[in-house]
Amino acid sequence: MISKNQLKLLRALGQKKQRKAHGLFLVEGEKNVLELVATSLKVKQVFATSEFLAKHATELDAYECIEATLDELTKASSLVSNNAAVAVVEIPKTDAPEPKGMMIALDGVSDPGNLGTIIRIADWYGIKHIVASTDCADPYNPKTIRATMGSFGRVQVTLLDLPRYLNEAKIPVYGAFLEGESVHTTNFSQQGILLMGSESHGVRAEAEQYVTDKITIPAFGGAESLNVAMATGIIMDNYRRQHS
Amino acid sequence: MISKNQLKLLRALGQKKQRKAHGLFLVEGEKNVLELVATSLKVKQVFATSEFLAKHATELDAYECIEATLDELTKASSLVSNNAAVAVVEIPKTDAPEPKGMMIALDGVSDPGNLGTIIRIADWYGIKHIVASTDCADPYNPKTIRATMGSFGRVQVTLLDLPRYLNEAKIPVYGAFLEGESVHTTNFSQQGILLMGSESHGVRAEAEQYVTDKITIPAFGGAESLNVAMATGIIMDNYRRQHS
Repeated sequence: MISKNQLKLLRALGQKKQRKAHGLFLVEGEKNVLELVATSLKVKQVFATSEFLAKHATELDAYECIEATLDELTKASSLVSNNAAVAVVEIPKTDAPEPKGMMIALDGVSDPGNLGTIIRIADWYGIKHIVASTDCADPYNPKTIRATMGSFGRVQVTLLDLPRYLNEAKIPVYGAFLEGESVHTTNFSQQGILLMGSESHGVRAEAEQYVTDKITIPAFGGAESLNVAMATGIIMDNYRRQHS
Repeated sequence: MISKNQLKLLRALGQKKQRKAHGLFLVEGEKNVLELVATSLKVKQVFATSEFLAKHATELDAYECIEATLDELTKASSLVSNNAAVAVVEIPKTDAPEPKGMMIALDGVSDPGNLGTIIRIADWYGIKHIVASTDCADPYNPKTIRATMGSFGRVQVTLLDLPRYLNEAKIPVYGAFLEGESVHTTNFSQQGILLMGSESHGVRAEAEQYVTDKITIPAFGGAESLNVAMATGIIMDNYRRQHS
């Protein structure tokens, strides 16, 4: 059973301020909870149905598990209907990653669903680090975590002073713009930072000044733009065709 | 002002059964409503704020426009908060497209958001026709229309007997599977059908039997799968690099 205090905490962790105060975040849904096992994240508690706990007893052995009904779990979650499991996890302390290999940088990408989808696509293409301006969506927002479809444990997202980071990086910065060199003809270097702006504002001037290569996804029809997560996926695919 | 009966109709059109009975669908949001002007779709009415009507008087000249408050419009919409415009539009009669050029076929893609995003990406890559199994999401669902970001008027989606359509098509059928030839090395023919399955079930056996070429997006990291709309975008980009 989920106690009143536990329910209060689970609900509180839906808010950024409360996540920061507690140093905790929520991982919701069966697949995401099971992904935790393979990560170094510190799990405080797992709330789950008796069926889920019985089925995954071995994997969940190291965690404090609390049995709850599907009804209780659904009440505790703002997001997932029919939620068989939710974990309370410590927000890890991370340092800004050294600029090397291929990385993704996000400027003002404020939608948690987009951020989560970008984390998933980064994971597909083997990108370990995303750096993001401080006004980007919270990587520990339950909506972000959910959209990663389990990839949250394999990609590190660091919110930081993005213009400064780009300025100090010694590797190429590929900025995605509506006008630039086609990604079909771009020669990507092995190391680099792919800089994506938000759908509404694009890459802002403060970050744009550090772009070394402006690139674009060629259009063939009538659509004016692509979703930022979609564009990130297409560009990463073009990079990976050259550097696997 | 929106009358009681009009409000009743607007609300009813949120449901598939009612859309079918009335032969009408909703186009919500400023950008989508303005996109209507460039299409051959028959607009019955536009409900919009006085600001929106005044600003776009010329474009909307041919339509019956009804002034409404933002509050009324938001109430009428299940989807869009701060909705300045909604149009009631006739569902066009369409025939199954002749299999030619490059097309997209969807098998069991039931999420309207995914369908809308696929319509948008089809439009970006200049694909005019999507054929979809009858259990796919409704192309006239307000969520689908919204996710197209205005591309709904440039891409025709036809729900039909998909296995039969693929069987009778005389052009290659490229099926997306987790195992297949890498899209980085596939030689796409100029004409073809890209067949995408749902994230949960993939391409089903009834459709799979007509696949001439199994293709896959190469993975480099830990993610197990890609969202179906994302995968469609990446594959279309690989096709377009060969055939513009």
